[in-house]
Amino acid sequence: MITSKFTPMKYSFSYMVNSMHAEDVKLLMKQSSGKSMISFAGGMPNNDLFPVKQIDEIYNELPDDLKKLSFQYGPTSGFPPLVKSVEKYLKRKDLPVDKNKILITTGSLQAISIITQEFVNKGDVILTENPCFVGALTVFETYGADIHGIPIDENGIIISELKDKIKSLKVKPKFLYATPNFHNPAGIIYSLERKKELLEVLKEHHIILLEDDAYNDLYFKKADKVLTKPMKAIENSGVEIIYTGSFSKIIGPGFRLGYMLASPEIYEKAETIKQALDACTSNFTQILANDFMQKNKLKPYLKFLRKEYFNRKKKLQKCLKKYMPEEVSWNEPKGGFYIWLTLPKHIKSTDIFKQSVKKGVVFVTGRTFDPKGKKDDCLRLSFSNVDKKDMEKGIKILAKAVKKVLSQ
Amino acid sequence: MITSKFTPMKYSFSYMVNSMHAEDVKLLMKQSSGKSMISFAGGMPNNDLFPVKQIDEIYNELPDDLKKLSFQYGPTSGFPPLVKSVEKYLKRKDLPVDKNKILITTGSLQAISIITQEFVNKGDVILTENPCFVGALTVFETYGADIHGIPIDENGIIISELKDKIKSLKVKPKFLYATPNFHNPAGIIYSLERKKELLEVLKEHHIILLEDDAYNDLYFKKADKVLTKPMKAIENSGVEIIYTGSFSKIIGPGFRLGYMLASPEIYEKAETIKQALDACTSNFTQILANDFMQKNKLKPYLKFLRKEYFNRKKKLQKCLKKYMPEEVSWNEPKGGFYIWLTLPKHIKSTDIFKQSVKKGVVFVTGRTFDPKGKKDDCLRLSFSNVDKKDMEKGIKILAKAVKKVLSQ
Repeated sequence: MITSKFTPMKYSFSYMVNSMHAEDVKLLMKQSSGKSMISFAGGMPNNDLFPVKQIDEIYNELPDDLKKLSFQYGPTSGFPPLVKSVEKYLKRKDLPVDKNKILITTGSLQAISIITQEFVNKGDVILTENPCFVGALTVFETYGADIHGIPIDENGIIISELKDKIKSLKVKPKFLYATPNFHNPAGIIYSLERKKELLEVLKEHHIILLEDDAYNDLYFKKADKVLTKPMKAIENSGVEIIYTGSFSKIIGPGFRLGYMLASPEIYEKAETIKQALDACTSNFTQILANDFMQKNKLKPYLKFLRKEYFNRKKKLQKCLKKYMPEEVSWNEPKGGFYIWLTLPKHIKSTDIFKQSVKKGVVFVTGRTFDPKGKKDDCLRLSFSNVDKKDMEKGIKILAKAVKKVLSQ
Repeated sequence: MITSKFTPMKYSFSYMVNSMHAEDVKLLMKQSSGKSMISFAGGMPNNDLFPVKQIDEIYNELPDDLKKLSFQYGPTSGFPPLVKSVEKYLKRKDLPVDKNKILITTGSLQAISIITQEFVNKGDVILTENPCFVGALTVFETYGADIHGIPIDENGIIISELKDKIKSLKVKPKFLYATPNFHNPAGIIYSLERKKELLEVLKEHHIILLEDDAYNDLYFKKADKVLTKPMKAIENSGVEIIYTGSFSKIIGPGFRLGYMLASPEIYEKAETIKQALDACTSNFTQILANDFMQKNKLKPYLKFLRKEYFNRKKKLQKCLKKYMPEEVSWNEPKGGFYIWLTLPKHIKSTDIFKQSVKKGVVFVTGRTFDPKGKKDDCLRLSFSNVDKKDMEKGIKILAKAVKKVLSQ
């Protein structure tokens, strides 16, 4: 991470690498000295997409009392009006807010961190999807979890593989971590059937589900909205579900705002842990985010985002179709930020990375998302942050790198 | 904590109780139903003291690119220009920034939490002052530390007591946590001699010092500035010192900004832990805080704060002199937020609390700051947050409560 000598290039560089494999970052640092890169790597919105004008308006309209309050400590549980706004927002997603409690967190990663600290002692088993969001993997590793990844297909986690895994374990997993909607990195969305099948298995084995729903709002077509129903919103599942969400994709990651919806018992310990982590989340960003929701800025902004990301996804897919060799396949995401490329089994995305980074293109290698750091015949392209004008050039370079590795 | 039904009264209530003993909060909730209270409890600036105008100006002058960046992820280590600004600021306090590294944290409590997670396993011994900042105690307890408090006098931790404690322990403490400048809650500042004596002991026993310096800038008289020299700024001490600071007292706690200055070895692990806690601190508040420092808003604001707090302290002391029975004594703070009242040994501040809360006055009881939750013949009055016009009335009520308990 670069901290000492600030230049805009280096800075954008430093947040680009947040989700990249440490070895890949090293290579990138070596190769890119000073060159600007076309990046399909970062899983964040492009700077030009943030609702800067809307927040400007909100900031300058804040009444004096509220502005002063934004400088002050708040309750550990969250700024109460924001808790109410999130409550309303989650109710519209059919989530059982009445029987559960909301904790505002410093980004949804903090929610994942809190739950890990609440449930996991060193050596405890947890289950994830494979591939899995690398930020969550970092948390699980930091707290010493024994992570077991279950493969997924285009409809979600593979049930037979999950059953086999559970059977093979000598202890009960502390929880299963999953991202059923617009998966990072795989870009898939679970079918409703798969969601129900998964709940059946979890119920049978009394395994807690940690459901990460950071991309819920980012479907491309209205017809697909029905698919985004959270698993926690499925009635009478009989499964203990901790649901997490984020403002990072619907306002901006710089606000560091997320939330957790959990049963009162789980919530209570979580609040105590949060108290020992940072006392409370920034009132400043909470107050702005609350007005963003209350003043009906979110709905039109989401409409804009969905269209924008849909167009980006279409453009990226068009480029892939045009340039990629036929040995490479990929999914058609219905929402979110990512396209997941599958390579022939004997090909390593790390080898492709070595080629493409020399020519100025970066992405995230497959092994980054494997809990064991091995499975490498896939790679993640993010269309959320790359400049649209660079997309075609970038994919052309990437395709060349793929062909080079294929021919070796 | 009140989260579900928001009213301004209840909300101010909920952050007032942040540093209070759980039992005292229960009593307060029962007694105060709807009544407004005069609070000497909260250890935060009054809402009217925040630099709202200055931040308004900064916000509205932010260039577009920077504003967009404030919505984005930043490096885990901190927004690089802010890291530089903090570096400059700490250099002026003679801190060894060249041989150490700065980590921006989500409030300085996060720094304390990170260091605890880095060094402490369940059952490990750590040393604190007694009394001790309750926020730190909460962290240490959450991570299962075996906390040993060492009494302090008006010049700092009592060296003979510290030596006896170390001798009596079967294991080496993981660190000593101390707040040498404008102690919370005791309101004292260590003499330079005591700082040096403390360093001698720590050096001899190879014990790490976790130095919390949240109140460093808040001396009342320029002549006393020399006393605020951080222990980490004392050359060739031979002690490993982790230094933490905060923006909560010099901009506002709602920004959730703090920092840590530590050796590269300690820093490196700390950064990894932070990555697993919240990935990075809010770019939004970091960018505003950076301009606050760079545009020279801090210096004049501190001048204003020092005068304001000095006046508040003088007023509070005048009231104490006027109303308190002679059995009660207190220190004359040279800076910070707190006056620490000492009661006759047989008197419990909890009993006084029971009386005063009925009449509408709250403060923090002595036992709150004792790691073992027992020593209760003291109490903390904060002059940073109480309305000036309520001070006399509040102390009059408090004095009555004291007299009542004395006469029982």
